Amino acid sequence: MNILFAGKPFERFRSDFEKVFPGHAIRIEDDMELQNCISWAHIIILRPVPFGEELLSRAGNLILAQQWGVGVEGLDVEACTRYGVYACNVPSRGTGNAEGVAEIALMHMMLLGRRYKRSQEKLLEGKFFTPPGRVMWQKTACVVGLGDVGHCVVERLLGLGMEVVGVNRTMKEEFREWGLKKVYPLEQIGLALKEASWVVLCLTLNEHTRGFFNEECFRNMKEGSFLVNVARGPVLDRQALEKALDEDLIAGAGMDVLWEEPPGAGDPLLQDPRVIITPHIGGVTDASLAGVMKFIAENVHRVARGLEPFSCLNCGKLRQ
Amino acid sequence: MNILFAGKPFERFRSDFEKVFPGHAIRIEDDMELQNCISWAHIIILRPVPFGEELLSRAGNLILAQQWGVGVEGLDVEACTRYGVYACNVPSRGTGNAEGVAEIALMHMMLLGRRYKRSQEKLLEGKFFTPPGRVMWQKTACVVGLGDVGHCVVERLLGLGMEVVGVNRTMKEEFREWGLKKVYPLEQIGLALKEASWVVLCLTLNEHTRGFFNEECFRNMKEGSFLVNVARGPVLDRQALEKALDEDLIAGAGMDVLWEEPPGAGDPLLQDPRVIITPHIGGVTDASLAGVMKFIAENVHRVARGLEPFSCLNCGKLRQ
Repeated sequence: MNILFAGKPFERFRSDFEKVFPGHAIRIEDDMELQNCISWAHIIILRPVPFGEELLSRAGNLILAQQWGVGVEGLDVEACTRYGVYACNVPSRGTGNAEGVAEIALMHMMLLGRRYKRSQEKLLEGKFFTPPGRVMWQKTACVVGLGDVGHCVVERLLGLGMEVVGVNRTMKEEFREWGLKKVYPLEQIGLALKEASWVVLCLTLNEHTRGFFNEECFRNMKEGSFLVNVARGPVLDRQALEKALDEDLIAGAGMDVLWEEPPGAGDPLLQDPRVIITPHIGGVTDASLAGVMKFIAENVHRVARGLEPFSCLNCGKLRQ
Repeated sequence: MNILFAGKPFERFRSDFEKVFPGHAIRIEDDMELQNCISWAHIIILRPVPFGEELLSRAGNLILAQQWGVGVEGLDVEACTRYGVYACNVPSRGTGNAEGVAEIALMHMMLLGRRYKRSQEKLLEGKFFTPPGRVMWQKTACVVGLGDVGHCVVERLLGLGMEVVGVNRTMKEEFREWGLKKVYPLEQIGLALKEASWVVLCLTLNEHTRGFFNEECFRNMKEGSFLVNVARGPVLDRQALEKALDEDLIAGAGMDVLWEEPPGAGDPLLQDPRVIITPHIGGVTDASLAGVMKFIAENVHRVARGLEPFSCLNCGKLRQ
């Protein structure tokens, strides 16, 4: 198989790829070059960049468009279907992605509860045993979005001795097994927020969830509570967040995702002592690298043998 | 009862004390003033400062010397026994102290694994999805010291999907129930260290453990692993740590406790990008404040009724 990796950021894993995909031809090309080499590829491995009609129309040999990770915002699945190309992503839970994102959510929750930024100022002032912080043990958290990431967050918060309420668009039977105190539908999020000292956003970004967490949500949060976003920047209404901080509706916010990545250098949120920001590193870990590679290697292997790949977003339609 | 709080840092909780100890007389005095007012006190509540012969000899009305928290380094229990005074501490687990310290241990583990300090530099450079970090899920941690704090750390690490090996001076039957992969005696710590990607020190400081974690321990740690200390500064040999960092024996260290608190303003560890320091805030939380106060209120209540207090360090001897 000819495997084309779309984008130079893959370059740093080249030696790993050569081990994981033995016997296959590998090219790593810049996004700008894809149109010139897509006809060579049987398989294209995609970062979160646009892939659709324009490239597919030149991709005469393509069998599989494989997203590197779970998020397929850039992958035009319908166009893949029209061209008879499998469109796949990598499941998040169990491959290290959801687990890593869940850990970064916990890290943000702790950094906020312990007022980490303030602690560093105190340290430089030579003050110990301060600032007083808040433990998560025996408090209530609200997890919004009970997909793979939400599931991993819930498990870990229960392990810290928290009570957890969930919010999800659909009610699923399996939620009963998760140990949640209660699950609310999205429309009743206000009831869930009122109970929680920490709120964690794990919603998939789509047309329904863009700007979902808005001013009304902040008004329903407990005084002194914290918001953490590990989903996608735009599920949170930025103006509503700024207003909530200005009006002290919440005590702080932690975000591994932003509306614009990277943000403008002068973005005031970067300097806000009540705000913790990390550069979208939740899923960028040793475990997810290994887990994603292993999963993709299996899909390459399957496609090379003429089998349907796993975690396929259009196999059903291609079969018809 | 006349309750004397030893030290001005208690002042900020005065209004809480007035609620929690109704009907009792409360004084909060500076350490320098104690000798002038100790004769007034039936009960003295102690921070981690020296309390022994000198003050006891003037404490004609004293019934109970109650440590505020678990650590009794400053409390001369034998002297209390000689003067017929109950010496008590507050148990750590279940009152929010051990739980809070365990959470700060996890926070340090995550900050190190995700290279938090570097992430903040990357952010300011406008770089996202970097640095690549390490998840705790499916890795092995070594917890050194399986007292209350160690127990709480173990529980939480298992909740993150880690494997945990323990190290403890004595082998206790109860360890079998904890879900540990293995428990080693202190002398075999080297075997435990070799397996672990994170090592967490939770040892009580005493004559046997001072400087316990030394150069040999660092040489037994896995390359690229991390050390976290939430016990007391001196259980860790500072020179050995500096050498381990210099020689890249480990990837980083996180400490909520130091050898000198606060450290000198020019302490190079404060600036080291591989070192995370917090100002001994692990146990300084809403939960432990409430938990410790509740526990002490119960002891005051018991002593006022002529009953033995709980978590008493010399009741057995006083009975004789």
